[in-house]
Amino acid sequence: MSAIKHAVVLVSGGLDSATVLAMAKSLGYQCHPLSFDYGQRHLAEITAAFAVCRHLEVPMPRVVRVELGALGGSALTDAAIAIPEAPTTGIPVTYVPARNTVFLSLGLALAEVLGAEDIFIGVNAVDYSGYPDCRPEFIAAFERLANVATKVGVEGGMMNIRAPLLHMTKAGIIHTGTALGVDYALTVSCYQATDEGLACGRCDSCRIRAEGFQQAGLPDPTRYRD
Amino acid sequence: MSAIKHAVVLVSGGLDSATVLAMAKSLGYQCHPLSFDYGQRHLAEITAAFAVCRHLEVPMPRVVRVELGALGGSALTDAAIAIPEAPTTGIPVTYVPARNTVFLSLGLALAEVLGAEDIFIGVNAVDYSGYPDCRPEFIAAFERLANVATKVGVEGGMMNIRAPLLHMTKAGIIHTGTALGVDYALTVSCYQATDEGLACGRCDSCRIRAEGFQQAGLPDPTRYRD
Repeated sequence: MSAIKHAVVLVSGGLDSATVLAMAKSLGYQCHPLSFDYGQRHLAEITAAFAVCRHLEVPMPRVVRVELGALGGSALTDAAIAIPEAPTTGIPVTYVPARNTVFLSLGLALAEVLGAEDIFIGVNAVDYSGYPDCRPEFIAAFERLANVATKVGVEGGMMNIRAPLLHMTKAGIIHTGTALGVDYALTVSCYQATDEGLACGRCDSCRIRAEGFQQAGLPDPTRYRD
Repeated sequence: MSAIKHAVVLVSGGLDSATVLAMAKSLGYQCHPLSFDYGQRHLAEITAAFAVCRHLEVPMPRVVRVELGALGGSALTDAAIAIPEAPTTGIPVTYVPARNTVFLSLGLALAEVLGAEDIFIGVNAVDYSGYPDCRPEFIAAFERLANVATKVGVEGGMMNIRAPLLHMTKAGIIHTGTALGVDYALTVSCYQATDEGLACGRCDSCRIRAEGFQQAGLPDPTRYRD
């Protein structure tokens, strides 16, 4: 009998992290979901994270509060900056400075406390919004850091950052999650969802998601507000 | 006339970070102090951070809340784990999992918002407590990460992690800070200080600090509770 493998899984309530959670579970990991209250505009995504975890029959997520929004600098945490509803070039205003670095750091802290050696994150470098911290070189650099920053690294173990969606298309992600029983109607991707989790259908995130279902040839279960 | 250089400086209220703040200021940086409410046992260190900033005539620190203590695993955030009052071997129970990774990540977020390209941290690899995230390889790995994680890295700039105490002895740190006008009576290093900032004189951190003043040949201004 092999030992139980424990994994911290970052769960945002969105489509990507729900898929990653289902993948980690299917790989036999004992999953420890981790979500963040970071000052985002709406808490619908945390509600969604709970719904996704319940549906996939993994433990309810720990929700850690981190006042990233207090530092400002992003449309996702600052109501004074409008969410773009048309494509933009360069790094968009919805970028939250260093968000994935902060989230992975807290995931690393939890992994160390639990003795887990795997941290799953749903970043994707194909159909994404142009954020620096969604690139393969970011994940590789964080994994190198994780192995010098922690007890595991000092004591000769290995901390692994798992980003299984990194090179997948949105359609491929949706196919994978569907096969693993993810109910995407429970997930919220919209940058300006209502408190009830209804999507705007116009922001970058909504557009990428809708195109994903179209390209996957699957019905889009997203609950839109219109 | 050269442009103003902005730096984020992590300020804990302790001896090391007070010295780093004085050094950054003396190098001509416009300093942006950053402190954390992370669930530590006492808030005396945050009070001390304010006192240090006022005395050095830099802006008051931003205090960001991050629920690191909620993840458990350290005597510094969990009152159920006793602070050792005699030397221990290996990584001590006062180690807070991934703390410096989390703090530098939030420093990185603030630096990115402010357009600062320098982040100062008071880690020290000589007279320290055996924490993995106080070693030179940790700082180097974080700097590499910072340059792929952020806009600056993507757009060809450079994010610098400055750890000027890394290879200094505690006595050397104290001499440097004293020359730059740091009032160490304002700083709190003790792992179990009272709310008023009075030190126990027995924990690892108190011991290292007291030895530093002794070796520096300077009077120890620490306010002890006995």
